[in-house]
Amino acid sequence: MSLLTVGTVALDTIETAFGKRERVVGGAAMYIGLAASKFTKPINLVSVVGGDFPKSELKYMESLGIDLSGLQVKEDEKSFFWAGKYHDDLNGRDTLTTELNVLADFNPILPEAYKKPDYVMLGNLTPEIQMQVLDQLKKRPKLVAMDTMNFWMDVAWDSLMKTIKRVDMLLINDEEARQMSGEHSLMKAAKVILKMGPKILVIKKGEHGALLFQDNDVFFAPALPLEEVVDPTGAGDTFAGGMMGYLAMQNRLSKTNFKKAIIVGSALASFCVEKFSNERMKEITQDMVRLRIKEFEKLVKFGAPL
Amino acid sequence: MSLLTVGTVALDTIETAFGKRERVVGGAAMYIGLAASKFTKPINLVSVVGGDFPKSELKYMESLGIDLSGLQVKEDEKSFFWAGKYHDDLNGRDTLTTELNVLADFNPILPEAYKKPDYVMLGNLTPEIQMQVLDQLKKRPKLVAMDTMNFWMDVAWDSLMKTIKRVDMLLINDEEARQMSGEHSLMKAAKVILKMGPKILVIKKGEHGALLFQDNDVFFAPALPLEEVVDPTGAGDTFAGGMMGYLAMQNRLSKTNFKKAIIVGSALASFCVEKFSNERMKEITQDMVRLRIKEFEKLVKFGAPL
Repeated sequence: MSLLTVGTVALDTIETAFGKRERVVGGAAMYIGLAASKFTKPINLVSVVGGDFPKSELKYMESLGIDLSGLQVKEDEKSFFWAGKYHDDLNGRDTLTTELNVLADFNPILPEAYKKPDYVMLGNLTPEIQMQVLDQLKKRPKLVAMDTMNFWMDVAWDSLMKTIKRVDMLLINDEEARQMSGEHSLMKAAKVILKMGPKILVIKKGEHGALLFQDNDVFFAPALPLEEVVDPTGAGDTFAGGMMGYLAMQNRLSKTNFKKAIIVGSALASFCVEKFSNERMKEITQDMVRLRIKEFEKLVKFGAPL
Repeated sequence: MSLLTVGTVALDTIETAFGKRERVVGGAAMYIGLAASKFTKPINLVSVVGGDFPKSELKYMESLGIDLSGLQVKEDEKSFFWAGKYHDDLNGRDTLTTELNVLADFNPILPEAYKKPDYVMLGNLTPEIQMQVLDQLKKRPKLVAMDTMNFWMDVAWDSLMKTIKRVDMLLINDEEARQMSGEHSLMKAAKVILKMGPKILVIKKGEHGALLFQDNDVFFAPALPLEEVVDPTGAGDTFAGGMMGYLAMQNRLSKTNFKKAIIVGSALASFCVEKFSNERMKEITQDMVRLRIKEFEKLVKFGAPL
């Protein structure tokens, strides 16, 4: 099944306890596309880059079944650029530079072939742009999922609320869920957010796993305990891309499949952080994902105690 | 099977977002005893209280099969007293008062009948006192477990290390594991700590669940997502007591049983925090624990995605 995604395709300079990488590829849509491509195609990508974005990386994405006819390449401009330094415990990071560049006046234009997607993943961007993408669709997709962040809650609450009403599944982290709902308890936060529009809510807790809320059902996907997290950049997008790619491949939106999908997303995210940028994701096959999922099963499986 | 436990039996004044309770019963050994009594007896308790500790609570503990012949009652003195206020997010707390009182010169004396226990749970206390309890044993127990805290790492590192060498299982929280090992990654921390003596390590992560390390095996017990946590006091001790009580009841120290035990401990802890002090634990039956464990199963169970 086809998956449409919109989001940044960017250059990142990343520093962690394990080293520094300058101007490596990043961005939500890049990570979403790579992860989803393990399971489904075509992936129709809407974004914008400058002339400085490596052509080899674009070719690589195309080789995975990612259609880039919706990617605007502005040769005379520069790609969106982010530089950040992670704290040694990887639980926080300081942004050193954010240059919007081509993103400053990004106007997402969907090629005709993108306008009837089966699945849609709106990566973190201004809610206005996310909505502009939905406005161009000619058919109601089977599932529209969306990511967002605290910043849009601060500066664009009204349009965020309008956009959220039109999506089926929202994926945010625990702090974002708390801010959005005004509730500290994630159980209470979920109830509030599920009244804002989405029928399904995923709350990502980073190294502490993720919660999936559908109707009155709660499911918990653990994070695999890792000895080393080399670079957390893109883990959340990889998680979302893996989840949506898997759902598009299965193409049956049962409660069971959402549970499986969140495990698949967690497995992919656990790979993503093992190397810088998209280095590790380039090495991953579906067989490797299958083996890692076995580790998730082993991690939480227990017999009836009583 | 018999379970010997040493730890505080105390009076607590607790304030949370849900209210305030003055001079209610608390203490590690009280919570451990109550939790373990759901599964095994006798529970032989070594501790000390003053004349201000409610006799009705002592009678209640005896009614559960908790033997109090090792509990010194110093009628003319006051019980160990702690007052604290939890932050609204319950992730932190401020200690307002700590009065050692009877604990200041506590000398644990084991009655003869306590000296050949099958299972031992050393609640958080000075490592010296924990060691004095082990020194009085006339038989190697089947399993010796121990809790401790950062404070003893700061002020009594050497005797802590001596005590740890003599225990089979250590239960500490994530911050304690990081301090003890000098490693931020819990996977690395576990490797370091398992070289200090214990064969089994449990790292408690509060609302984020708990990790169980045995040999090269890692198991993860989630915490049940709760709408409201009324009072977190005693959750860790209830967890440990439930784990040890269950292991004593099963009396077979297989890897599988340790996994089941940590789920049982998590289930009991999830009850403990629903009311103040030991109020909720007084209401819990083994049937209620069984039903809650079903919720844990449902929370993490998924079919093979690939």
